[in-house]
This record gives sequence, C-alpha cells and structure tokens, in this order.
Amino acid sequence: MKEDTKFSYETIHTCKQSGARTGLFKTPHGVIETPVFMPVGTQATVKGLFPENLKDLKAQIILANTYHLFIRPGHEIIKKAGGLHKFMNWDGPILTDSGGFQVFSLANLREMSEDSVEFTSHLSGDKFKFSPERCIEVQNALGADIIMQLDQCTEYGITKEESRQAMELSLRWLKRCYEAHKDPNQLLFPIVHGNVFDDLRIESIKESLPYAKCGIAIGGSIGETKAEMHHILENLQPYLPENMPRYLMGIGTPEDLIESVYRGMDMFDCVLATRIARNGTAFTHDGKIVIRNSKFKEDFSPIDEKCDCYACKNYSRAYIRHLINSGEILGANLLSIHNLRFLTKLMEDIRQAIKEDRFLDFRAEFYKTYKAKDPKDDFFRISLNKQSKEVKTNKKKGN
Amino acid sequence: MKEDTKFSYETIHTCKQSGARTGLFKTPHGVIETPVFMPVGTQATVKGLFPENLKDLKAQIILANTYHLFIRPGHEIIKKAGGLHKFMNWDGPILTDSGGFQVFSLANLREMSEDSVEFTSHLSGDKFKFSPERCIEVQNALGADIIMQLDQCTEYGITKEESRQAMELSLRWLKRCYEAHKDPNQLLFPIVHGNVFDDLRIESIKESLPYAKCGIAIGGSIGETKAEMHHILENLQPYLPENMPRYLMGIGTPEDLIESVYRGMDMFDCVLATRIARNGTAFTHDGKIVIRNSKFKEDFSPIDEKCDCYACKNYSRAYIRHLINSGEILGANLLSIHNLRFLTKLMEDIRQAIKEDRFLDFRAEFYKTYKAKDPKDDFFRISLNKQSKEVKTNKKKGN
Repeated sequence: MKEDTKFSYETIHTCKQSGARTGLFKTPHGVIETPVFMPVGTQATVKGLFPENLKDLKAQIILANTYHLFIRPGHEIIKKAGGLHKFMNWDGPILTDSGGFQVFSLANLREMSEDSVEFTSHLSGDKFKFSPERCIEVQNALGADIIMQLDQCTEYGITKEESRQAMELSLRWLKRCYEAHKDPNQLLFPIVHGNVFDDLRIESIKESLPYAKCGIAIGGSIGETKAEMHHILENLQPYLPENMPRYLMGIGTPEDLIESVYRGMDMFDCVLATRIARNGTAFTHDGKIVIRNSKFKEDFSPIDEKCDCYACKNYSRAYIRHLINSGEILGANLLSIHNLRFLTKLMEDIRQAIKEDRFLDFRAEFYKTYKAKDPKDDFFRISLNKQSKEVKTNKKKGN
Repeated sequence: MKEDTKFSYETIHTCKQSGARTGLFKTPHGVIETPVFMPVGTQATVKGLFPENLKDLKAQIILANTYHLFIRPGHEIIKKAGGLHKFMNWDGPILTDSGGFQVFSLANLREMSEDSVEFTSHLSGDKFKFSPERCIEVQNALGADIIMQLDQCTEYGITKEESRQAMELSLRWLKRCYEAHKDPNQLLFPIVHGNVFDDLRIESIKESLPYAKCGIAIGGSIGETKAEMHHILENLQPYLPENMPRYLMGIGTPEDLIESVYRGMDMFDCVLATRIARNGTAFTHDGKIVIRNSKFKEDFSPIDEKCDCYACKNYSRAYIRHLINSGEILGANLLSIHNLRFLTKLMEDIRQAIKEDRFLDFRAEFYKTYKAKDPKDDFFRISLNKQSKEVKTNKKKGN
C-alpha cells in the first residue's frame, strides 16, 4: 500500500516565461505549496523558536535530523511520546533525513561495509551501527511524514570511481530501505547521488525512480561552485519526474533557492538562515547586513522595510543590535524569525511569479536590489579556485 | 506636580486572618494588582522571552537595570528610540532600579564620595561617574514608570557604624534625587536602608517617607537568614505607609514571596526564576525539580500538573529535559515561562486568598505540598551558621 492517497503531488502551474513550476504536495499533516523552504529543527526544535513562531512566519513543513534524535534522546523515547509531532508540539508536516549525512560528517566513522555503517556518537563515544533497515526503523519510530533513504554521502573532489562506488551502494541501500519500510503514513524519498559526474547522476536517478512514489531528492556533493551546482541540476532535468516533488538537499541562500527553482527543484532545507541569525547576520532585500555593525547603533528602522515578519513589525535594528551585542537570546530569536520569514516570503513571491508567468522578471528584480553583483560570489562555499565553465543553456521543461 | 494622579494606590482588601493586603497600583502604563511579582529584564529583555510570552503568563510589570542599559546601549540611544517601552516593545509598566546595586556589585569601584560614585564598566573598562542627579537623568531618559533613588548598598556583616554612614548617605542622595526628578510620568521610590540594625532601619524609613509619594522600597542587605529577613520586615511594620505600595527588592523564592506578603510587602523582583530555568530547574507545587535528572527521561507529563502555563499545556518533562540536555535554547525559554508563571500564579492565588480572608490557610496548604519541611532551609542564601532567634510575633496590621 505504498502508493496510497495519503501523499500526492500536482503541478498547479508552469511558468511560461521560465519553465519553473508551482504545485501542491499533499501529506498526512497538511498540503504544502511548492516550491517550499523547510526550516531545520535538528534536535526536534528550530533553534530558539516556538512552533507558533514557525506558523506565524508561514513555515509549511520542518525538517528534523535522525542522527541527532537517534543519539539523543533516542527514537524509542520519541515513539513512546507519541512521535515527533507530539513530542515537539508541531502539527504540520515533518521530514526526517536518514542520518547518513551526519554519520559521514559528524560521527567518528568506525567501519563501512555493504551491510551497514558503524560509528561512535560525537557526544557519548557510544558505538552504533546504521543499516538501511535500522535507518527505516528509527525513522518509523520518529514518525515524520517524509523519510529519507540511507545513503553514502561523498565529498567534493573525490574520484569518479569512488563516486560510482558510493552511488551504487546508495542504490542498493535504497532497495533495502524500500523493502523495510511498511508504514503508509510515511513517504520514502530516494536520494540521487553521483557527485559531480553527469553520467553517474543520470544512472542514479534512472535507477532510483522505480522506488520514488511521490518524491525524490538530489543529494550529496552538488559541486563547489554555483556554476557546477547549476550544471548538475540542468544535467538531471530531462530525467526529473513530473508527478512528484524534487527535493534539493541542504540548499538555502536566496540566490540558490531562486536558481534551483529555475532548474526544476521544489523543496529545500538549510540551517544557514538560523545559523547566520545567531551570529547577527540578516537577509534583506538589499543584501545581507551584519547587525553588530556600529552604523546600526541609532538605526530605529526595521531590519528590512519590505518584510512583514514579527521582528520587523515590532523591533528596530538598534534594539536587535543591542540584544546581539549583549549576548541576549532574544536577538538570535528575532533574527532567526526574520531570516526564516525572508525565505518563506521569497518562496511565496516565487510561487506568485510562477503563477503569473513572470519568474524571470521576478528573478531579475530580486537580484537588482539584492546586489548579487558577482554571480560567482559565493557567501558560504569555499572557493577552490576551480575554473568551471558557466552553463549557458536554460532548458525549458515541463511545458 | 509630583503628587499628580498618574500614580495612585488603593488597598482593596486586608485579610482578616493574616493582616496581609491586596491593592491596586495605578501607573501611566496600566493598573497593577498587588501583591505583584515583577520579572527582571536586565538588558531590556527578560532573557529568551518575547513580550507576548510575558503578557501570556500575566506579568503585570517588568524591571530593567539602569546600570546595564547605561553601559550598553546607553540611555541616550534608548531615549532617541522613544524610551524603554518602545525600544523593547513592552507597553506595560516598567520599573528601573537606580544602578546603585550593580555599581557596588558588578563594576570596579574607583572612588566613593559625598558627591558621587566613580566606577569602571565591567565590560569596557570605561570610567563613569554616577551622582544622584546623573542617576535621575539616566532613568528619565529610559522613561520607566517607576524609578529608584541612587543608594549605597551594603553587604551583610558590616559594622553598625558602617551601616549608619551608608544609610545616611543614601538619605542625602534621596533628597538630591527628589530635587533632580521633574518628570510627572515617572514615580520616584525612596529605598529604606540600615542593614540588619533595627534602629537604623526605623530611622531610614522615617526620614525617607516625606519623599515617598506613592511607593517605598526596602533595600540593601536584608539579612542572611530567612529569620533575619522576617525580623527586619516585622521591625518596620509599624512604620510602613498604608497609602502606597511597599517594594521588597531582590526577593523571589515562592517561600520568600509568601512570607514577605504576610509581613506587608506588595512588590517583588528577582532573577532567580529565570536564572534557575536556564540551569534546568523548575518550580512545582511539589517543590523544585531538576529537569536534567534521568528519572524524567520518559516522563511525558507536564512540568507541573497544576500549572496553566504555555509550557505545561504543550510540552512534556521528557521533551524539556531533552532540550536542556541538548543545549537547546527552547528548553530554557520554556522553563523560564513556567517558572515566571509559577510566581505570577502564586501571586494571583495569594491575592485571591487575601480577598477571601484565608491567607494563612493558603500558606499552610502551599507549604504542605511544596515540602518546605525545614523553615530554616534556604535554597539560595549562604548560611553563616548564625543563631538568629525565630520571630514569633506576627503583628496584625492595617485593620
């Protein structure tokens, strides 16, 4: 009963100007308008925010991290609590990742085999084993609406042969996840891998599609430059399924969201918005600002005049600067609300522009004030000074 | 025009069983039902909470610290922002302390004279001078409803002569504060000093009363044991003015609130509730609990079954324990909401018991479950092993 009607996806409109699409993704905890940005609640809480703040800023779905919750408090406790929704007091849709990314980045890896991955907790030093079956068991216990397959995440810069091996292992693990997953209230997403290699990515998506019932994810290293990321998405476009949402994992700058929607992506998550908030950085329509800067000392205007968030409606830059400089939690909370609302509002604006067949105009307007002067300027990636050719082609799709 | 009608106090009822009183204290930003507990927002924010949380937990008035705001962001900036209410988005009554306590406890004292106190900021090392006139100027700029005189705070254990000198200086500073203060929208409270010495306290209150228009505070060292604190309050009782609220500074355990209301006090503030929250401790009707404790790991009940706060209505001990153990801000926020609501609800219950002439019954009932088995048990004071005789007399007053 995997194909039951608890999940469905429908494209509402495809932009005649750009080919970008907007749709409705139905889940047991609500219908999501796509494209959608998902705030990250790593440890069953979006850092510093109440669920009411998330509703207020129009978050439609949030993400939680399986690895973190498995390590602490443990999936059995969350299951006993009645599942993640009840545990954390969030009644909207939730997506859990597989834990794979954290096992490969946070934990101390002990042993990697065909069967599973062994690791020691980055907190306790306790030894654990994650197999595809275990990954599904844990995610079943957490009870999110959308769950992810266990995958082997790879870094940028590895060889093609290494990329192939990881991609193929992820495919075999996908099959095992698919077999192990029985709960019709949860939808399993395959994850497309293959690093930066075009043919591997295509092979991965082709082999994954039979297991994608109402959603597919693009994961792993998606290139070190924006141009490489764009190329990977464009390379995949002819193979992207029309009848389900496509989730580009771990992407969350305003530019990346716009460029990825343009290239057919529907779902996004990233810790960036809340992480930079805690460091005192805010998104604005005129680009990012660092609120600690002394020029905001007597600036009694809101963070962003164009923003409708709780922080912008009620507080000044001067007050938030004071809070951040004083180490007061409320400063991080207000900036987190603002940055998340900036992204959810951006997605609203994107959806509206798509409906009105003017997504390319919207994109040009946004960049004009957002001051993305240098398309190669990449705020959060480390440039490896690689020469990657700019992708010129912008294939229309879906219409 | 200091005696204008922007401020007034009226006793609504005096408990026939105990002599404790409940009243209405009118300020420009709202009418306060007394006895009242005031959450502390040291740096123009009650740590981690939105003003809406404070409204929701029925906080009637909050306190901010003049010293901290003078140091950072500076009172001129807050004045330019339109005052503290607007700066921090709190439209209810605010009380600012004089900064005296922090100057004597936090700052590095440089020089003390009849004229003023010189100190260096505990943050920047910058040198500042606080005179009574300067203290009023700063508090006028902040714009709180209630402001405090500059006083010389003394520690427990000093000699009577030292206590007298400090008390007399505070009286001379009171007169200068009174002369310097012109804003009819702000009410100046004198502060009664005299350390643990009965005659000094009586002299202080008698000399202060002419300057007390609609409120008076009891400050400084109020003894190292509960018994000493009770004695100081009982000693002052015959001299306490009927027609204004009496503010006992820096007191905030449930037991201290109950015992001080019993001894005629109307207003209280303390950082304790929010400070212990951040460390994972919660007030409950069955006594304090440390939520980190592993026995709460699978405890899906609320912090306190009897509590009506947002945290108790929506979250379990197990979830809050997980948040606190994971270093997640939301844990501290939820416990802060709970602990503050515990105290504001306690004050509501106290007011109701007073109105129904059963305050002593209420007090006995509360202690029965709160498990204050040893009346000398003092959770937050350092016992100096002093033998202080228990005060037996409980003078009825005000009726």
